[in-house]
Amino acid sequence: MTNFSWKVNFQSKKNNARTGTLTTPHGKINTPAFIFCATKGALKSSTTNVAKDNNSQIILSNTYHLMLQPGSDIVAQHGGLHKFLNWNGPMLTDSGGFQIFSLGHGSVADEIKGSSNIKRNNTLLNISEEGSLFKSYVDGSFKLLSPEKSIEIQRNLGADLILVFDECTPFHVDKSYTESSMKRSHRWATRSLNHFNSNIKYKPTFGSAGQQKLYGIVQGGIYDDLREESIDFNLNKIDTFGIAIGGSLGSTKEEMYKVVNFTAPSLGNKHPIHLLGIGDTIDIWNLVKSGIDTFDCVSPTRLARHGSALIKGKLGKKNIKNNEFSNDLSPIDKNCCCSTCKKYSLAYLHHLFKAGELIGLQLITAHNIYFMNELMQIIRDSINNDCLDKAEIDWFS
Amino acid sequence: MTNFSWKVNFQSKKNNARTGTLTTPHGKINTPAFIFCATKGALKSSTTNVAKDNNSQIILSNTYHLMLQPGSDIVAQHGGLHKFLNWNGPMLTDSGGFQIFSLGHGSVADEIKGSSNIKRNNTLLNISEEGSLFKSYVDGSFKLLSPEKSIEIQRNLGADLILVFDECTPFHVDKSYTESSMKRSHRWATRSLNHFNSNIKYKPTFGSAGQQKLYGIVQGGIYDDLREESIDFNLNKIDTFGIAIGGSLGSTKEEMYKVVNFTAPSLGNKHPIHLLGIGDTIDIWNLVKSGIDTFDCVSPTRLARHGSALIKGKLGKKNIKNNEFSNDLSPIDKNCCCSTCKKYSLAYLHHLFKAGELIGLQLITAHNIYFMNELMQIIRDSINNDCLDKAEIDWFS
Repeated sequence: MTNFSWKVNFQSKKNNARTGTLTTPHGKINTPAFIFCATKGALKSSTTNVAKDNNSQIILSNTYHLMLQPGSDIVAQHGGLHKFLNWNGPMLTDSGGFQIFSLGHGSVADEIKGSSNIKRNNTLLNISEEGSLFKSYVDGSFKLLSPEKSIEIQRNLGADLILVFDECTPFHVDKSYTESSMKRSHRWATRSLNHFNSNIKYKPTFGSAGQQKLYGIVQGGIYDDLREESIDFNLNKIDTFGIAIGGSLGSTKEEMYKVVNFTAPSLGNKHPIHLLGIGDTIDIWNLVKSGIDTFDCVSPTRLARHGSALIKGKLGKKNIKNNEFSNDLSPIDKNCCCSTCKKYSLAYLHHLFKAGELIGLQLITAHNIYFMNELMQIIRDSINNDCLDKAEIDWFS
Repeated sequence: MTNFSWKVNFQSKKNNARTGTLTTPHGKINTPAFIFCATKGALKSSTTNVAKDNNSQIILSNTYHLMLQPGSDIVAQHGGLHKFLNWNGPMLTDSGGFQIFSLGHGSVADEIKGSSNIKRNNTLLNISEEGSLFKSYVDGSFKLLSPEKSIEIQRNLGADLILVFDECTPFHVDKSYTESSMKRSHRWATRSLNHFNSNIKYKPTFGSAGQQKLYGIVQGGIYDDLREESIDFNLNKIDTFGIAIGGSLGSTKEEMYKVVNFTAPSLGNKHPIHLLGIGDTIDIWNLVKSGIDTFDCVSPTRLARHGSALIKGKLGKKNIKNNEFSNDLSPIDKNCCCSTCKKYSLAYLHHLFKAGELIGLQLITAHNIYFMNELMQIIRDSINNDCLDKAEIDWFS
């Protein structure tokens, strides 16, 4: 009866890397896969057509932003996000927790990655057992997001994969807060799942959405014993289709790799594993070895808007605004088959940035999207051929 | 030996409206046609692929902007504008005169249309018989643009259709200035043509461009006797492939229609007639009756960037930012087959503007491009069926 399935196709013997197939009613995702962020219902500077033409498998949107603008009812009236934003492939929505607790601390990425100089979000008014009270950045009104409310909104939005409501515990809090926050997030996860199950035949007022599957979220910050407790909770106390790894992942890449490598392998292969908000090229190469199946990050489209085109190698990117490209007739990467590299020179892209032409953002975004999908394809192929280490050395050499 | 031709296919007996075929080495243009402005080598917020998918026949770029950034040599190194900006169809470049004299007065459109509160461009330092000395807005350096220099740059840029160098006489000057400016523009046109002919086998240093054809420009402001003299000059004293109507067209639409209707019919049918910088829907309906074959204007893409989607009827546009569209599930126009109307609702487009998402500009721009091409198609069909007046009434009813 379900149109969902998850299957590990190949499991490396050298490490926890694996390839898999995640099937949704809107299509299959070959994993490891990258999920592109259509945060507010739009990929930044890219139409979904361009993302599809450049091999994207899945995109995500954010409950928090969409509940404030345009509101999930309007999305539901369209028949859900797929129709609203013209994407016929698999989609995921986060639960909103992530943003409520992250916006105002600096960036979401700063938060997960534990950057310093962070303050508690000043639009967050109160966290209680019931949920989180915050102030809308759109119209200043008070909003309560609870596990039940988050699930209802995500039902309206109608993505294939949806998340339990959680608190994204900041890095700067102590272990005691992290623990009590984790326990509350577990109670919220149970409430999310109960509400999700009670609504399994949910018919949104306006006829949105189809079938959906829920992801739990592993909390516990940088503390192994808390992560262990949360892993046990997610595997044995609730029953969700997928599991995401959330919360603070420490303040350095090494700490992040340690947390993920402690967590992901213990989650086994019954669930697709998503790592929330991480997606630098080097992180992906490292963390597929821990068994991460899907990644998401705003960086490919954000870098593009700042003129950075992603490339292989240690450098990792070209800054199109550099004068060295002003008369360079070659494409960003002569081996790249993206819609931009096939047609446009570095000199032209450089010109577009100098002249302030918006299509410069579009063209580099298209390249970065293709690049991430190509990276994941190479990773999948090398896992299947059990030569991931060699492929990584090739990539950075 | 030439890949260029111009043929009037149908000439109305009721007025001067006509359909024609303008053939270039990069393809045929069915006229009357609209030319989209890729001013600085890029359509604003639209890739050339999207413009092509939405039926665009021809685009133009501006010598003035491109000589300053990135410089015509770099374009020539690419093999010309077609390759630089990825457009394989017909192209036109203006001579640069238009911008030198217009920038700094407000907008180019203000100038042609004679808006008040205009000042002489403060980057224009001197006009002499030799040419125009101005200050680069990119790096502050002094630049001289002469007829010969303009032709050389346009050879490097390599558009199919290029223009003689002229002074775009402002509206606020008196008849005596308009007359002496016109006479100088005529001498400049002769020098442009001589330089063009001496370079007919021009091989740019870097191997740009192919064959090109030159347009003369009719000057004379709002003065019938001056327009008459300039018509005679363009028809009998120089020999160019096409003729453009330039200079000030008065301060009201009525005055503009009067000038164009005085000028265009006298130009006969041996040359394709281009009207510089005009392209509001209502102007096009009026001025095809005078025998204008091609129009150009920044308005379709500029309006899109301000959230205005073009529609038929008296109103002429929908302001996507209006709250009335916040939950409107219909497309901009339910009968429109553009790439936007087929996929996206008004509510989504409204949301994109509210959320500050750049793809809102892309999607409305695509619609406006399709809209202008559809308008021209309807006009061509109705001229061929000799029912232009009926079609115009239908359009605005």
